[in-house]
Amino acid sequence: MMDPFAAAPRRVTICEVGPRDGLQNEPQAIAVDDKVQFCDLLSAAGVPMLEAGSFVSPAAVPQMADAEQVFARIERFAGCRYLALCPNERGLDRALAAGVEAIGVFTAASDAFARANIRMSIDESLAVIGRVIRRAKEHGLWVRASVSTAFGCPFSGAVPLEAVVRVCARLLDAGADQLSVADTIGVGTPNQVVDIVGALEALVPAGALALHFHDTRGTALANALTGLALGVRTFDSAAGGLGGCPFAPGATGNGATEDLVYALHGMGIETGIDLTKLRTASRFIAAKLGHAPISRAYTALEAAGPCVTVPGAI
Amino acid sequence: MMDPFAAAPRRVTICEVGPRDGLQNEPQAIAVDDKVQFCDLLSAAGVPMLEAGSFVSPAAVPQMADAEQVFARIERFAGCRYLALCPNERGLDRALAAGVEAIGVFTAASDAFARANIRMSIDESLAVIGRVIRRAKEHGLWVRASVSTAFGCPFSGAVPLEAVVRVCARLLDAGADQLSVADTIGVGTPNQVVDIVGALEALVPAGALALHFHDTRGTALANALTGLALGVRTFDSAAGGLGGCPFAPGATGNGATEDLVYALHGMGIETGIDLTKLRTASRFIAAKLGHAPISRAYTALEAAGPCVTVPGAI
Repeated sequence: MMDPFAAAPRRVTICEVGPRDGLQNEPQAIAVDDKVQFCDLLSAAGVPMLEAGSFVSPAAVPQMADAEQVFARIERFAGCRYLALCPNERGLDRALAAGVEAIGVFTAASDAFARANIRMSIDESLAVIGRVIRRAKEHGLWVRASVSTAFGCPFSGAVPLEAVVRVCARLLDAGADQLSVADTIGVGTPNQVVDIVGALEALVPAGALALHFHDTRGTALANALTGLALGVRTFDSAAGGLGGCPFAPGATGNGATEDLVYALHGMGIETGIDLTKLRTASRFIAAKLGHAPISRAYTALEAAGPCVTVPGAI
Repeated sequence: MMDPFAAAPRRVTICEVGPRDGLQNEPQAIAVDDKVQFCDLLSAAGVPMLEAGSFVSPAAVPQMADAEQVFARIERFAGCRYLALCPNERGLDRALAAGVEAIGVFTAASDAFARANIRMSIDESLAVIGRVIRRAKEHGLWVRASVSTAFGCPFSGAVPLEAVVRVCARLLDAGADQLSVADTIGVGTPNQVVDIVGALEALVPAGALALHFHDTRGTALANALTGLALGVRTFDSAAGGLGGCPFAPGATGNGATEDLVYALHGMGIETGIDLTKLRTASRFIAAKLGHAPISRAYTALEAAGPCVTVPGAI
């Protein structure tokens, strides 16, 4: 019997996307003070990478309109990289003015999704991203590039592996320091992780590949751990499983950081994250959002009570 | 890069435990008519093994008091094995009178849990089970033996691997046709699956080992797929993720059949289950229970609506 995790790293980096990808998809508006405190609680929990906000158009994404104030006020912890999402050069200008040191750019593996999400074809967006990365590098910024809908598109269905590889290659050529390959709508299954990571193996240096899963159909953790088995070292997730799914109202959003950390720590894999402090951050933002976190691990750990059992508990 | 699923079977058997392990842990009482219809809907969905009820003491588990009526009235589909849980010889008598053809017996890997759950030590329960299996075999019944708390005990914490192996060996010696090794409280992580399946490899014939996971901390699917990667061919789950966790009120229960089927089918692994018909069964029982199924895949598939997207959907 072969241990499927024989090649797994002993330490992984979690990119916490709750304050951005999470809150952006929550209907409830959050005050700047609360966003700042949420970020600070996440930093205090030991998160090593934090997507703290997005410099997108305030008209398009009102939840992120206060990104300047968030970046001006969050505490910077040593050992944590604070990411600002920048869709274009205007966003980069705002990020530079806000003094950020790391940015995120994004496009899609599906042209239909790119056109719906950013009103550009993939190639048009790559031209924009090329200019953003060039200028970001002139300012010494670290750049992460996200590829959405790599596991499936809500508009065009299956996404060819070649399309994922092509976009990743273009983003690396443009100078991205890290790629985050995303299952935007949470349709992916572990065989796709094997296919995608395998196809990118020759292209992307070890350590420069991240995976980003949504738990819409319950596969986020299984997909992440498949990536882990294949040697992937960086995973995106959101505290409490924040964020909904705009394509399936009522469905769940990002994979939950608590579920990922619980599983990784159980497997003896270090994350640097304190699960108790992470729960404090999730509890804090849940009170502001007015609903309980959907993370299974969060729920179980918060609810743990005295033991009772009836015959036939299997 | 090694495909972690290279040794995975191409077809798996799902043992649907919703009508028993699921409903037993739901506070809402369900009428016999509704239990029968739930079982029939599950059969119609193609479930190959169905834990339809339990012949335990009605005083201890009132939710299962009508097991005779359920077994008298459910439709038997060709290709489906209908299991009745029998804690002791009195239960076996009732099962035989009800004309069942397959029974489940159960003990624990943790002595503390056995004493709390069935008021016997593990060894005392093995003596009872030995008598039950002997008589069941005389009547030509197929016998499944479940080992609860194999991944951790709510009373005594960590459970030694040796304790799991010892109980499994004793159950096989007693004549069990299949073992179901259970993470009763949903604390297990994939490394434990590797350890347990590895330790049982020499002992249990391929095809005679099943794994039973609860999703209390979000690990049910990842654990099942780790078992799959190791060659395990049978998995227990509950339609809709039925059942709570008596040790963490508000937390989730059995791993959801929909989540498992969605992932397996995505991986090209056959289950014989029709996911749409399975959702019909879950929808039916959810209406009777008065709460929505907690299965992520169920929720997403039911909620799927028109596509909308805002800039920065990653």
